[in-house]
Amino acid sequence: MSKIPFTPLVEGLPASVPFVGPETLERERGERFKARIGANESAFGISPRAIEAMAATAAQSSWYGDPENYELREALAEIHGVAMDEICVDAGIDTILGLAVRMLMREGDSVVTSLGAYPTFNYHVAGFGGRLVTVPYSNDHEDPEALIAKAREEDASLVYFANPDNPMGTWYEADVVQQFIDSVPAGCVAVLDEAYVEFAPEGVAPAIDTTNPAVMRMRTFSKAYGMAGARIGYVIAHKDLITGLNKIRNHFGVNRIAQAGALASIRDEAFLAEVKQKVADGRARIAALAKTLGLESLPSATNFVAVDVGSSDRAKILLTKLHEDGIFIRMPGVAPLDRCIRVGIGTPEEYEIFAEAFTRRLGEI
Amino acid sequence: MSKIPFTPLVEGLPASVPFVGPETLERERGERFKARIGANESAFGISPRAIEAMAATAAQSSWYGDPENYELREALAEIHGVAMDEICVDAGIDTILGLAVRMLMREGDSVVTSLGAYPTFNYHVAGFGGRLVTVPYSNDHEDPEALIAKAREEDASLVYFANPDNPMGTWYEADVVQQFIDSVPAGCVAVLDEAYVEFAPEGVAPAIDTTNPAVMRMRTFSKAYGMAGARIGYVIAHKDLITGLNKIRNHFGVNRIAQAGALASIRDEAFLAEVKQKVADGRARIAALAKTLGLESLPSATNFVAVDVGSSDRAKILLTKLHEDGIFIRMPGVAPLDRCIRVGIGTPEEYEIFAEAFTRRLGEI
Repeated sequence: MSKIPFTPLVEGLPASVPFVGPETLERERGERFKARIGANESAFGISPRAIEAMAATAAQSSWYGDPENYELREALAEIHGVAMDEICVDAGIDTILGLAVRMLMREGDSVVTSLGAYPTFNYHVAGFGGRLVTVPYSNDHEDPEALIAKAREEDASLVYFANPDNPMGTWYEADVVQQFIDSVPAGCVAVLDEAYVEFAPEGVAPAIDTTNPAVMRMRTFSKAYGMAGARIGYVIAHKDLITGLNKIRNHFGVNRIAQAGALASIRDEAFLAEVKQKVADGRARIAALAKTLGLESLPSATNFVAVDVGSSDRAKILLTKLHEDGIFIRMPGVAPLDRCIRVGIGTPEEYEIFAEAFTRRLGEI
Repeated sequence: MSKIPFTPLVEGLPASVPFVGPETLERERGERFKARIGANESAFGISPRAIEAMAATAAQSSWYGDPENYELREALAEIHGVAMDEICVDAGIDTILGLAVRMLMREGDSVVTSLGAYPTFNYHVAGFGGRLVTVPYSNDHEDPEALIAKAREEDASLVYFANPDNPMGTWYEADVVQQFIDSVPAGCVAVLDEAYVEFAPEGVAPAIDTTNPAVMRMRTFSKAYGMAGARIGYVIAHKDLITGLNKIRNHFGVNRIAQAGALASIRDEAFLAEVKQKVADGRARIAALAKTLGLESLPSATNFVAVDVGSSDRAKILLTKLHEDGIFIRMPGVAPLDRCIRVGIGTPEEYEIFAEAFTRRLGEI
């Protein structure tokens, strides 16, 4: 028996992980999934320009990436109309969420999020010893007014809000989000997770205002740009917040291949437009299928659709059965969201596999 | 003026960074370096098998990497003769050092290292609020006995020891390292950084013993395997230590391309042997050059050589002049190590550029 001198905080953490990976499930099944539509990954790949840049950089990756992510920040600054020192690039939003928590939350501080929202944020809050306080979703939407009220009540360090939302795919218009930002109480900083914003209709992202030190806008190349496996995302915020991140981030933490890929794809507007159209088509297909099957589905501004299958028990059974059929899919973790399954927009082939199996399995239960 | 509600710890951290990247210096110069031999990157690239695997995976990196790094851990476990749950893979040793500090060091705890050893470890200790205590190098070697004595005296949480050492390139035989491991005081864990171990002679790494919960053995694909820019490394340790890391690491933090590259290169023994030979040849060239110029150089078990140029002032002037000549090179940060410059093993072409410029600049001062 060993006795590791862990910090009391780490000693007390659960060994559970935010998400089990599809590869783990595949190893358990002894077989590859035929449709991988459970992790909100893009089914439509990476910009050809990015693939080319990444493949070329693979051979050159004996060199560390630029710790300043200079060229990428330069391009992003121009695109977003902000200064370079108002952007921090790191290895995906997950990494940036961890840094934000570490930077702004003391052990024991309260942090507010929605009950059932992104688990990896909660993982970081627990991992740094915060006290997570949740407010319920309202009509399958995160509830920005309730989040703010709770943040005020709890004197929270951070309040998390995703727009569009994951796992439900719902969203608010910019004026509501702006109202949320404007209402963040003193001493609190809002994490506005906009991972899916490229899939949303125009007018969902409020204008970026980096004079406001109370909000961090998180963006990623993992979703619409299709680079989840490359690990690169960024945050736009007041320069003092960026200075704070620069004090604690791993300066050589972003891989050189991802830097090259992000830079190549950020200007590929034709590719992005194509992906958005394919995702919109895919959402429509799933909504139509649900309707045909007599089910409700939620309007979505993301690359997945929450389909209401009536109850958590039914959702769990369906997921198990669909896994048996070779379909990787996930569902929200808590009630009442867990009456839904979350169906990612796959390729047309993946959709056909899903549609057949879903129709059949639904008939069985 | 903004007032960000940073934690007191982050508020008090310096904005300085462990290393300025070569790209930053290139932007300042307005020109690319002709020889990039300052960051201990490999000049001999990546295994052709890895390049192929990485290029192929670039197109497929819409998928997150396997959060368990299963296949790679499986291969590493077999190679090192340990169990899979005694290995944790993450985005380079830098990331793992941060996790180790966070996991084992409470704010205010003492941590012991050598004065002038790897700055990124110190960066993490400061970043998590530790109290860094140093012991001097002894005859250009880290001093394992002094490290242990200081760790005991300070009741330290962690003691850092690199074998072979960076920035001096010196090393100890396995029996000395084993003695160090066996002497780690209760309540303390040793971080044994073996980033350069593949370049060392046989008999430098003591046998791996994962029954000992007082040591973490850190390895990387950044050096001999030439994958610094891909960001992947690992730690071998008692399974309870690995369980602790799994409680706090970013589970989807390793990029899929690096996973594929590491797996492809780990079995490419011919490539590794070739790199080791080239590095040994390069060390001999630099040592011979130094001798010709009437300088001492240190024997090295790494992919760089510390060349004694007589004083810190001379080293600084030489570095500035060499930068002007298009040569990226670094030097140790503190006395008495800083009487040396640290010359990376470049390609033969890079060596020629360095040798010409170094000879000329040395003649000028």
